[in-house]
Amino acid sequence: MSKGITSKNDDYSQWYNELVTKADLAEHSAVKGCMVIKPYGYSIWEKMQAALDKMFKDTGHSNAYFPLFIPKSFFSKEAAHVEGFATECAVVTHYRLKNDGNGNIIVDPDAKLEEELIVRPTSETIIWNTYRGWIQSYRDLPLLINQWANVVRWEMRTRLFLRTTEFLWQEGHTAHATSAEAVEEAERMLDVYADFAENWMAMPVIKGIKTANERFAGAVETYCIEALMQDGKALQAGTSHFLGQNFAKAFDVKFTSKEGKLDHVWATSWGVSTRLMGALIMAHSDDQGLVLPPKLAPIQVVIVPIYRNDEDLAQISEVAKALVAELKAKNISVKYDDRDTQRPGFKFAEYELKGVPVRVAMGGRDIENGTAEIARRDTREKQTITRDGLAGYIETLLDDIQTNIYSKAYKFRAESIVKVDTYDEFKRLLDEKPGFLSAHWDGTPESEQKIKEETKATIRCIPLDNELEDGICIYSGKPSKQRVLFARAY
Amino acid sequence: MSKGITSKNDDYSQWYNELVTKADLAEHSAVKGCMVIKPYGYSIWEKMQAALDKMFKDTGHSNAYFPLFIPKSFFSKEAAHVEGFATECAVVTHYRLKNDGNGNIIVDPDAKLEEELIVRPTSETIIWNTYRGWIQSYRDLPLLINQWANVVRWEMRTRLFLRTTEFLWQEGHTAHATSAEAVEEAERMLDVYADFAENWMAMPVIKGIKTANERFAGAVETYCIEALMQDGKALQAGTSHFLGQNFAKAFDVKFTSKEGKLDHVWATSWGVSTRLMGALIMAHSDDQGLVLPPKLAPIQVVIVPIYRNDEDLAQISEVAKALVAELKAKNISVKYDDRDTQRPGFKFAEYELKGVPVRVAMGGRDIENGTAEIARRDTREKQTITRDGLAGYIETLLDDIQTNIYSKAYKFRAESIVKVDTYDEFKRLLDEKPGFLSAHWDGTPESEQKIKEETKATIRCIPLDNELEDGICIYSGKPSKQRVLFARAY
Ligand SMILES: [Zn+2]
Ligand SMILES: [Zn+2]
Repeated sequence: MSKGITSKNDDYSQWYNELVTKADLAEHSAVKGCMVIKPYGYSIWEKMQAALDKMFKDTGHSNAYFPLFIPKSFFSKEAAHVEGFATECAVVTHYRLKNDGNGNIIVDPDAKLEEELIVRPTSETIIWNTYRGWIQSYRDLPLLINQWANVVRWEMRTRLFLRTTEFLWQEGHTAHATSAEAVEEAERMLDVYADFAENWMAMPVIKGIKTANERFAGAVETYCIEALMQDGKALQAGTSHFLGQNFAKAFDVKFTSKEGKLDHVWATSWGVSTRLMGALIMAHSDDQGLVLPPKLAPIQVVIVPIYRNDEDLAQISEVAKALVAELKAKNISVKYDDRDTQRPGFKFAEYELKGVPVRVAMGGRDIENGTAEIARRDTREKQTITRDGLAGYIETLLDDIQTNIYSKAYKFRAESIVKVDTYDEFKRLLDEKPGFLSAHWDGTPESEQKIKEETKATIRCIPLDNELEDGICIYSGKPSKQRVLFARAY
Repeated sequence: MSKGITSKNDDYSQWYNELVTKADLAEHSAVKGCMVIKPYGYSIWEKMQAALDKMFKDTGHSNAYFPLFIPKSFFSKEAAHVEGFATECAVVTHYRLKNDGNGNIIVDPDAKLEEELIVRPTSETIIWNTYRGWIQSYRDLPLLINQWANVVRWEMRTRLFLRTTEFLWQEGHTAHATSAEAVEEAERMLDVYADFAENWMAMPVIKGIKTANERFAGAVETYCIEALMQDGKALQAGTSHFLGQNFAKAFDVKFTSKEGKLDHVWATSWGVSTRLMGALIMAHSDDQGLVLPPKLAPIQVVIVPIYRNDEDLAQISEVAKALVAELKAKNISVKYDDRDTQRPGFKFAEYELKGVPVRVAMGGRDIENGTAEIARRDTREKQTITRDGLAGYIETLLDDIQTNIYSKAYKFRAESIVKVDTYDEFKRLLDEKPGFLSAHWDGTPESEQKIKEETKATIRCIPLDNELEDGICIYSGKPSKQRVLFARAY
């Protein structure tokens, strides 16, 4: 069919780009670096949002909304923060256009802002400036707020979903009375992200902490979940930051404790973004197109009639529509595609491309025999199943597919974590068998930086459940107390 | 209590401002003209979004996402459109900050954009530029897309929810093969908005069309729903535009018809915004605070225990928690407020301020008698009800409250539509008994403009179901074929 895509073994990067556009997930817009998320892609994002939003609310968070714009002066208040984001900020300098008299629309020089506004790349500064008015006493704590929003970080080289100038995300911003509570919150939200990645996206992740080099600008500690894509490159799928009192101090947010003591508040922030769409696509898909875990598939089941004439179609439709009703009663999203403008083969390819987990084909013979042909997207296996109990069979099959997609990714990931003890071996494996390389590191930013410059591999994280082990740094030969995970990454 | 607010009869405007902030709905941010929507306010907006989103999907629409930024040149392509929005645009001119060497963060002059970007005030231009790539044939039509997004229109004088520089909204953008289909869509979405306003917000609205003066910049016809606030001022609660082929021509979007003819596509756009929050507040609330229709109330029922000691509380809690479970089983959102830091009177006032539709108070006597005291927020009536069947009673009561709030608003609106036949009477009523004034108008923009300048009243709409009637224009004395609705408006 015309929508055939490059094989991922031939050119993984090209495979990804074609998949995103041909499966109608997203496309580049006329605005450099900004994407259009198309309806099919957006419907997957909506499913992600709904699941995450429920998890946030179940853990006590409320949603709110803060301004898109941040005064430049706020930005400068937390030194590490501004340094981290200054080089990628969209800046609003004027608030009016005008006609120049020659029919051209120009920026009105008389409408220059006294203070420039930054389009938020993240909202710590504007939010902590607001929290100052909301927090006086320990009774106002913890303050557990999340925001769903668009953010802008100017990027020179962009890729759909993975790195775009504008992206959609959620950012949680919480305030606590003690350091311990804030750390607990940061860890809780890391667990929520890991739960979502594994149980909804069917994507195993490693929970860990970032080295100082890779820490969020303004954080004391950055927790992360790291996933592995099918090409052996890592992808940071979510981060949760313990911010200490950095932002409370920068914005002077204090509270009176139960004991009447005045102290700065402790903070966290945490976020995931439309980058997860990229991770979802790259983690599971194949040369036929998307492979979507059933829990995030906008269409979980598609029914395609195979008929020679209108009489055939009428008979099949009767059975198909009964099945649609049964599946809907089980909260399974199902589409009956009886378009007469396309042939079954075209439809099969289209739903494979779009990653629909289960396809049901019904022909005249099936109606006679009381059967249907069931094809699962993950393994592409087909089976003929009797019509009796078919809805229940499909319900179980969807669970099996969810589990199988996870297991496959887990197995691949397990095979892709390799212990390495020399720098030569490290460099060889990065090229020949990429994945997570578990290696000793002396703990210095200098060695980390050198390795990055020489190999493009970064320390993805120090796993939370890391075992201590004496060894020597693969780069410097200096003593090391534990291995860390290196990889090339998106 | 400390949260007492100004009476709406003393100062309606002040009453509104205090209500919005004291009920924790929203507040002004540090960014001029931009608001912070606080968790309680945002939870009402989420309920609005969920209801509207379902209505959009039930009428065949899908969500998508388009860029925040619009190149200046796109803006200029539809002449009326740019004229309408040019004077209120936030303009991005640079993409980087830098340290000036003296520790100051400044805009990097080397990072000036070749073409300025406008922060979207509405998305017709970027969307129609995108649709050019999506539409080739009649098979691609209709294209029925909605976007939930933030938009920016620079405002010099702002009011929380009613007029803010940044606001949240949804914007539908559809493409059709014929003019008739596009008109039908614009009218369908107007009906959806009216349905939502009346059946969810309990706010009666008049459906009508705007005069040329009040039309959306770039539209052929603007449909609107107009609501009446308790001070007799009108509020435009939603608009739906038939855009003809204006944007298709500006962005060269053509399709091949079934007959093989090439033609420009027909368009609509339609939107409602966080302005609806302002309408909801002003339509029903009173001097004690918010009055929320149950269908949009984040907390529909609150249970407050009234106790002298821990033993009392334990007994009450047992009964209260059983009631909570029963209500939740009926999908009623309920909160049991057993905080020991506040007295019942304080809690009563707080939930009145926040507009919780039903309050259940339970004391020791109630436990003995198997009763509870039920107070409804809309009428502030109290009744003692037996515990048996209480959940069912509350379920019915919530429906009654929803209906009653609507009826009250409907009655007020009915009394506030007055036929006027002279300009003197028109001016007198605007000051003495504001509301919708139904008056003859000669159909000219000149008379309309003069009336606006002299009285601040505008033509809110020409009602869709208007009866034709010969008369003379109250302003010019020229002949008129129908009355139109004037009002001062938000
Ligand atoms: Zn301080
Ligand atoms: Zn054209």
